[in-house]
Amino acid sequence: MRQKINIQMNRRFFEDLKVGDRFKSQTYEVTEEQIISFAREFDPQPFHLDRAVADKTMFKELIASGWHTAAITMRLFVQTLNFAEGAIGLGVDELRWPTAVKPNDVLQVETEIVDLRESQSKPSHGIVRLRYVTTNQRGDIVQTMYASALVLRRKR
Amino acid sequence: MRQKINIQMNRRFFEDLKVGDRFKSQTYEVTEEQIISFAREFDPQPFHLDRAVADKTMFKELIASGWHTAAITMRLFVQTLNFAEGAIGLGVDELRWPTAVKPNDVLQVETEIVDLRESQSKPSHGIVRLRYVTTNQRGDIVQTMYASALVLRRKR
Repeated sequence: MRQKINIQMNRRFFEDLKVGDRFKSQTYEVTEEQIISFAREFDPQPFHLDRAVADKTMFKELIASGWHTAAITMRLFVQTLNFAEGAIGLGVDELRWPTAVKPNDVLQVETEIVDLRESQSKPSHGIVRLRYVTTNQRGDIVQTMYASALVLRRKR
Repeated sequence: MRQKINIQMNRRFFEDLKVGDRFKSQTYEVTEEQIISFAREFDPQPFHLDRAVADKTMFKELIASGWHTAAITMRLFVQTLNFAEGAIGLGVDELRWPTAVKPNDVLQVETEIVDLRESQSKPSHGIVRLRYVTTNQRGDIVQTMYASALVLRRKR
């Protein structure tokens, strides 16, 4: 029972967040095999699929699909912020990939709360606006975006 | 040799595109197994992972991660437009998920060219601005977005 209470206390609700709060994720290493496997299923373009072909493109080597980078960013974010009942994505703006992700890159995500407001349509939830910056092991920015999500409020 | 020439002729270059052109993709059925498998790897939140838990959320059933919907949209787009050397994603704006994707939904993407301009930094390429609308088998819109991509120009 105590275990259960602790887990619930660690869960974040809307009221636990403040504008300006920053959260740093764990790290995630992307392998060549994962890059090719994701691309085969979702983004079968030559520079994501085949090292020999990729070598001849402007990138000079195999690069990950931007959607793969976005999916890894989500994974790191979900692991970092333990929202009660999860965060329900409403939308994403200004998603950019300034540097390509390459095999054996180690990614990390920093998230900042940039806005908080009540939901008109769902009074049980609040709307959180977040800024995400994903970097590689050299500190190069591989992805930036803003996203809004519905997060549960504490029952009053 | 003729085969090779035909394939190359079918490939689209920047010059082959006109503002207002629309492209309809094939369809793609999303299974419950795929929804859970994507979520386990990239978006491990309860309403994407477990049907019993999802039944108790506002969605009343298991729903796909928005990033899964985005990845499927990319797959359908890549299959539809056969760009010479692929389309290099520069960024995405106004990505929205107005309706959740559920098991056995059949998705289809319509893409429209909304802007075309030359690349200042890469004269070999043009920049294509696209509007994507992804629908399910009932015609409900499950995702909309704008994206920009670099596409190869014909050599002159």
